[in-house]
Amino acid sequence: MTYCLGILVRQGLVLAADSRTNAGVDYISSYPKLFDFSVPQERALIICTSGNLSITQAVVYTLERDLKVDATPNLHKLPTLYSVARYIGSQIRAMQDADRPWLEKDHIDYQCSFLLGGQVGEESPGLFLIYSQGNCIRATAETPFLQIGETKYGKPILDRTMRYDTPLELAAKSALLSIDSTMRSNLSVGPPITMVLYEQGSLEIRHRLLLQAGDPYLMGMRKHWELSLREAASRMPDIEWNYESPPEAPTYSDLEEQ
Amino acid sequence: MTYCLGILVRQGLVLAADSRTNAGVDYISSYPKLFDFSVPQERALIICTSGNLSITQAVVYTLERDLKVDATPNLHKLPTLYSVARYIGSQIRAMQDADRPWLEKDHIDYQCSFLLGGQVGEESPGLFLIYSQGNCIRATAETPFLQIGETKYGKPILDRTMRYDTPLELAAKSALLSIDSTMRSNLSVGPPITMVLYEQGSLEIRHRLLLQAGDPYLMGMRKHWELSLREAASRMPDIEWNYESPPEAPTYSDLEEQ
Repeated sequence: MTYCLGILVRQGLVLAADSRTNAGVDYISSYPKLFDFSVPQERALIICTSGNLSITQAVVYTLERDLKVDATPNLHKLPTLYSVARYIGSQIRAMQDADRPWLEKDHIDYQCSFLLGGQVGEESPGLFLIYSQGNCIRATAETPFLQIGETKYGKPILDRTMRYDTPLELAAKSALLSIDSTMRSNLSVGPPITMVLYEQGSLEIRHRLLLQAGDPYLMGMRKHWELSLREAASRMPDIEWNYESPPEAPTYSDLEEQ
Repeated sequence: MTYCLGILVRQGLVLAADSRTNAGVDYISSYPKLFDFSVPQERALIICTSGNLSITQAVVYTLERDLKVDATPNLHKLPTLYSVARYIGSQIRAMQDADRPWLEKDHIDYQCSFLLGGQVGEESPGLFLIYSQGNCIRATAETPFLQIGETKYGKPILDRTMRYDTPLELAAKSALLSIDSTMRSNLSVGPPITMVLYEQGSLEIRHRLLLQAGDPYLMGMRKHWELSLREAASRMPDIEWNYESPPEAPTYSDLEEQ
């Protein structure tokens, strides 16, 4: 499994990914899932991948190849972030066309999904989720984060803390907490964690983080978080147990008698 | 969807459930999913249900009917909590036998699962998860909570706060937070919330809670929690961005050249 997330706030973007890949619990490996295709001063482009590894690797490969042979279109020529998202979608479709019939025969999951975050020239920063079918949605001020892969464990912390006005550094901390919550609850998501922070208008990735398993910051963060949650739970007002007798509603057996 | 959880700590037990049932997002109703079959001074028995509503209702019905006609076995005659769990499992199997072929024909999900928490006579309190197949597992000191239904959103808070030595009242607060996190992130889990707290050795349920949507305690709890999480995230030590240049590893296109 994989967990990647992107957060779009007024001050910029955060994208983060774990690095665990598994084919069953007995074959677990580590692969990069966050790719930087930025051209400093011109465009910031970060891509995260989730799903069938052979498909996502093949798509990233074609993105790189198109750059190398200076194909049109490619990641560095397209004029808007949306057109970049559609172009990635078309590469996903091409790979699904090529491989899906063979994977389907053996009931192998061929689904994949991508996050694309960045900024192209004068445009505002943007964040897209590109589906296995090649279509895409974008993050908005009302829904400032997007997730792919094993998304459920890490969603509550984002739901509780993320707003479009959240400071960028706090968004990065919440992203780490969201990934750590997922790693804590699901063994198939694991370190190293990679994360980038992008400041709106900078057209350059200036903040990158790579956290290995057992990194002191990760351990410290986890301890701080667990203590804070326990403290916050203890500080909740006492429960007023309000319901002293069992429900008065007829039971199923009562109903049968009527 | 449904979310129910049980927590077993040294001081006793907490069981809690939401009340939403849906057949698609356009048919959402409210049903009780937590049932009290206790006989004060003799045995405490709480059951929570999840999954196909016609199956879980039918199983609860047969449990009630067996009590009414004084069948052997029934919930009040069995000598141990484990034997009660196996008896519930056998009723699940009977209902699956009766209905599953008809449900399967129309690809209707026939799965269900049950939580059983309580204490029978001199035994220690126990907590069981009974599967759709009729078999069961029990909570232990190492894994002091069990969940059924939509379990992922509410698991991180339990992973971070629950130990076997956690005070009972704190376990109840964490259970509410776990359900509230799930409701916040997934519309198909919803109020009213029902919860019971059982003190080890009391052989009687003395604390019951019913929280309707919009209950002031629920709203206050949610606000307190969101503020606490945001505060705790802000108080995290600043991230030391440690990774100033893109990875040195060869890209896929480089590899092709070799």
